Amino acid sequence: MAIPIIIDCDPGTDDAVALMMAVAAPEVFNVLGVTTVGGNVSLELVTQNALKVLELVESDIKVYKGCSRPLVKPGIMDADYVHGLDGLGGVVLPEPNRQAEAKHGVDFIIDAIKSHPEPVTLVPIGPLTNIAMALVKDPSIKKNIHEIVFMGGAMRGGNVPGGYAEFNIFNDPHAAQVVVTSGLNIAMIGLDVTHDALMTEDYFERLGLINNVPAKFMTEMLRATFEIEKKRYGFGGCFLHDPCVIAFLFDRSLVTGRHCPMFVEIGSPATSGQTVVDWHNWQQSPANVFVADSINTQGFLEVVMSLIERYKH
Amino acid sequence: MAIPIIIDCDPGTDDAVALMMAVAAPEVFNVLGVTTVGGNVSLELVTQNALKVLELVESDIKVYKGCSRPLVKPGIMDADYVHGLDGLGGVVLPEPNRQAEAKHGVDFIIDAIKSHPEPVTLVPIGPLTNIAMALVKDPSIKKNIHEIVFMGGAMRGGNVPGGYAEFNIFNDPHAAQVVVTSGLNIAMIGLDVTHDALMTEDYFERLGLINNVPAKFMTEMLRATFEIEKKRYGFGGCFLHDPCVIAFLFDRSLVTGRHCPMFVEIGSPATSGQTVVDWHNWQQSPANVFVADSINTQGFLEVVMSLIERYKH
Amino acid sequence: MAIPIIIDCDPGTDDAVALMMAVAAPEVFNVLGVTTVGGNVSLELVTQNALKVLELVESDIKVYKGCSRPLVKPGIMDADYVHGLDGLGGVVLPEPNRQAEAKHGVDFIIDAIKSHPEPVTLVPIGPLTNIAMALVKDPSIKKNIHEIVFMGGAMRGGNVPGGYAEFNIFNDPHAAQVVVTSGLNIAMIGLDVTHDALMTEDYFERLGLINNVPAKFMTEMLRATFEIEKKRYGFGGCFLHDPCVIAFLFDRSLVTGRHCPMFVEIGSPATSGQTVVDWHNWQQSPANVFVADSINTQGFLEVVMSLIERYKH
Amino acid sequence: MAIPIIIDCDPGTDDAVALMMAVAAPEVFNVLGVTTVGGNVSLELVTQNALKVLELVESDIKVYKGCSRPLVKPGIMDADYVHGLDGLGGVVLPEPNRQAEAKHGVDFIIDAIKSHPEPVTLVPIGPLTNIAMALVKDPSIKKNIHEIVFMGGAMRGGNVPGGYAEFNIFNDPHAAQVVVTSGLNIAMIGLDVTHDALMTEDYFERLGLINNVPAKFMTEMLRATFEIEKKRYGFGGCFLHDPCVIAFLFDRSLVTGRHCPMFVEIGSPATSGQTVVDWHNWQQSPANVFVADSINTQGFLEVVMSLIERYKH
Repeated sequence: MAIPIIIDCDPGTDDAVALMMAVAAPEVFNVLGVTTVGGNVSLELVTQNALKVLELVESDIKVYKGCSRPLVKPGIMDADYVHGLDGLGGVVLPEPNRQAEAKHGVDFIIDAIKSHPEPVTLVPIGPLTNIAMALVKDPSIKKNIHEIVFMGGAMRGGNVPGGYAEFNIFNDPHAAQVVVTSGLNIAMIGLDVTHDALMTEDYFERLGLINNVPAKFMTEMLRATFEIEKKRYGFGGCFLHDPCVIAFLFDRSLVTGRHCPMFVEIGSPATSGQTVVDWHNWQQSPANVFVADSINTQGFLEVVMSLIERYKH
Repeated sequence: MAIPIIIDCDPGTDDAVALMMAVAAPEVFNVLGVTTVGGNVSLELVTQNALKVLELVESDIKVYKGCSRPLVKPGIMDADYVHGLDGLGGVVLPEPNRQAEAKHGVDFIIDAIKSHPEPVTLVPIGPLTNIAMALVKDPSIKKNIHEIVFMGGAMRGGNVPGGYAEFNIFNDPHAAQVVVTSGLNIAMIGLDVTHDALMTEDYFERLGLINNVPAKFMTEMLRATFEIEKKRYGFGGCFLHDPCVIAFLFDRSLVTGRHCPMFVEIGSPATSGQTVVDWHNWQQSPANVFVADSINTQGFLEVVMSLIERYKH
Repeated sequence: MAIPIIIDCDPGTDDAVALMMAVAAPEVFNVLGVTTVGGNVSLELVTQNALKVLELVESDIKVYKGCSRPLVKPGIMDADYVHGLDGLGGVVLPEPNRQAEAKHGVDFIIDAIKSHPEPVTLVPIGPLTNIAMALVKDPSIKKNIHEIVFMGGAMRGGNVPGGYAEFNIFNDPHAAQVVVTSGLNIAMIGLDVTHDALMTEDYFERLGLINNVPAKFMTEMLRATFEIEKKRYGFGGCFLHDPCVIAFLFDRSLVTGRHCPMFVEIGSPATSGQTVVDWHNWQQSPANVFVADSINTQGFLEVVMSLIERYKH
Repeated sequence: MAIPIIIDCDPGTDDAVALMMAVAAPEVFNVLGVTTVGGNVSLELVTQNALKVLELVESDIKVYKGCSRPLVKPGIMDADYVHGLDGLGGVVLPEPNRQAEAKHGVDFIIDAIKSHPEPVTLVPIGPLTNIAMALVKDPSIKKNIHEIVFMGGAMRGGNVPGGYAEFNIFNDPHAAQVVVTSGLNIAMIGLDVTHDALMTEDYFERLGLINNVPAKFMTEMLRATFEIEKKRYGFGGCFLHDPCVIAFLFDRSLVTGRHCPMFVEIGSPATSGQTVVDWHNWQQSPANVFVADSINTQGFLEVVMSLIERYKH
């Protein structure tokens, strides 16, 4: 039976891929709604992008605009240097025919969880602001949350200035700390995994051969990203960070990891946003997070391909 | 013309007095609503207490339940050692005939501000969780906020273990930091002032001679507090922290202070919640908060008396 | 019997007064040596100044050059804006006939303590670098330290940018933390006291009538400081911070205070160097420092006068 | 020509191996002296151990006792669980015929550097207390320091509770921060390298076949460590952390790394002692440390073997 999920995102090129993958597998994912959060680019843009991508794949899943700023930090550092100024790698999609719902993303998360007959899985792939806001505004939702699987964090080096933190967590470390200390089932799919989720040129060519709209969009969008990452890191390839979370939920055997004690550094200006994982757990403290640390790259890319291939046109 | 205000509170004996004072002066205060926040005692209790006190003074101002936990800290330290287990000094008021509204306190704050024709003044006298949540959930409300005048903070020594922080700020330092760095007009009425807002025995006797329900309730409630504070600090008298904010809004000449640069310490576990005020401002940084540092004690107590005396029965 | 003391200083106008006071009272103070530390002005200057002042009062107490930089911080913020570029308020004293000893100040402290038949009292009136270095280099000296009485710290507002810390502690917070957590008898004579140790104009006039070399030097030196402080704070008068420590050791009844738990903030970049005193000690933690909080101003100024008057020429 | 070095150590089984390696190569290393520091076990024990090991290899290099406690932290966490209660894996070496010199280790470092005709290389393989103390006590030594190559730190996970820091740096983070921000040439040989410097069973067997006193001692000493590590980590093998530094100085081609910006976390109680390396240096800040990140394991073990084999008896 399909698992009820809410995707909380900031598309973003890899968010767009993740959305298309989730929508393609209705037997696995019952997407209750999509919420947006300021992150890769501004809240207005990510919301428009979510609507455009869903329209592209002819989905009527509703979109709810969430928070435009972090819980405590005065603002976010965006990442248009990766995702393009518009967040979709420069690809111009048609303006969507519908708008985001009137309800705030935080309220949708609360209401959807409270009204669903089964425990809901939250799938945040941007900063964790909306999720933390929901937990603070109405802690009673915890009773009906099955799990939170987020893209973010890093054990072995991040991708923000200073190198100690990952972008999503850096942008709202306090929200992340609220989530990982909530006592809920939490899985962290961080850079340690997603840096092995590189779409290489051979897969990119295979993608180009798929004859449907999502594949064509993805090809065009990732081509730009290829170029950006090449300039930035000096090699061809394109990180598919957020799709790892969908792939993990689709087939957990693709990812290995370990339940660990971990916290988010919010007390040190110098390393704020660092995800401090006690991988070896020498103190045998209670583990609060499943921390992923490796992925079957080929298996992952096959899942991506097979889900995108499902689209008929 | 009356100023439109929202009182955000956690009654609490001194919150109860503040509420009764505000309701007594409709020519000065247009109380749009009362929101509650976990603080002195639990959210359930403070909400019941707000309802009971408003019913006692025959007010139909609506009450909206807000947040039960802080923005980031896992929980609060309550203060039933001061306010009694029930928060009203052991006085048993009748069960209220009405309940809190269905709308969440954070949403009431947002909606009331956005729909009011004039800029609204926020009057938080508990932890600043609700106010911060509203600012994060919908930053557009800033346009219609006139001012935030809060009870909390301390320059010269606090009242929580360690002695460096004041109770309200200690309980949600992150929310306080969101508020004081919001760029809005902020006034801090902290312990430096409220420790001179001591109701002494002579005023307590005068209060006993006022022949109306609020005065009788207040007498009974503060008698218990007198005893508690006597045990705690070794002298007779009763701090009227929260009423200082109402008195300040009623007559600003009662309080002196200065616009200063200030922030809330959220980076040091050792002094979390400290309000760090640069009183002398040698660096001439931009001042973000009006920090009160003295009060005309007698003038203040006269305002308290005169407002309570207004009630007819 | 005279108490054996080591004065660790950074003259500095008020250090100069403190030195002259101590030398004037051989029945009370057996000054084993004077060590210098980078602080008000550079180590070279403060060492020269110590030598010049001692020569002025015809003392042969030896001077030992200590540390020029703090324990951990990369450098100091000096205070020539208060003490003049040369540290003595612009007064030109003759070049001294002798030099600092070859032995390092830290080693003198260690050797003097270990070789003295009675427990030694340390009197640091600059940053605590030398004292901390001695404690780290040879912890066995603790056995023969009677007490450490330092000028520094503040409970109620400091005198460095940000306003949360006092100059000496701000300049080497880590050293201060080593000292106050050493388990030794510690007394802190901070700004809370020394801001009441103001030489007012009437006393300044009395000083001008004393007919000896130290009084004439002091008059000339403080005249400049008067002007500097007037520009800075807007009133005539001159803080005699460091002399408070000598006055306290001369007559403890001049100062009141309390044994408190306290620590130095070294974990927060935002408030580094703050002396966090738990004055009310609600948690009843072990008290580690005697924190002075008031001084008999007139009594203090009389001690200053009477000691300076002792000089015959 | 041999490079003049000072080895600052806390033997410790792997320190003992490092010492024997350095002494074996007089054409490469001119060991000016050995200083000791509290670390793996107490200062008294490590000093005795240094003397014993040097006597075993018939060296007359002098030993100077340094600091027994860290710069700021109140004390150290020792590691007798790895090195045995006596620090040499339970091997009983004869009592040494000589003692440590009277001069303090910190003073030896200062004096040796200042008096040596060529710039000196410092080789600290324990906590960095002595090195930092020397730099603070006499900053003029910087002029004659060629380089500081230390064993310590970790980019990808440490070996103390919490998992974020390496033992040597954890034990004196403030000293480490003083050293890495000194502006000197610094090389960090940390766990990222030394966790690949594992003496495996085949090399251990080869060691057993070397017929001289040092090899026999090393075999016996490491046998115990083998057992300890097996219990701790679940595999046979023995980390040769400190010998990596000697091997690196012997043949720099064994180790790869990169010049990076880095600092030691001293501001966060939660992650104190973490070495925060900006490996990718996206901000292009000035690099202050050469951070090693891989070692040629076989080449390293061959260097260890060949140096130990040099001993005639």
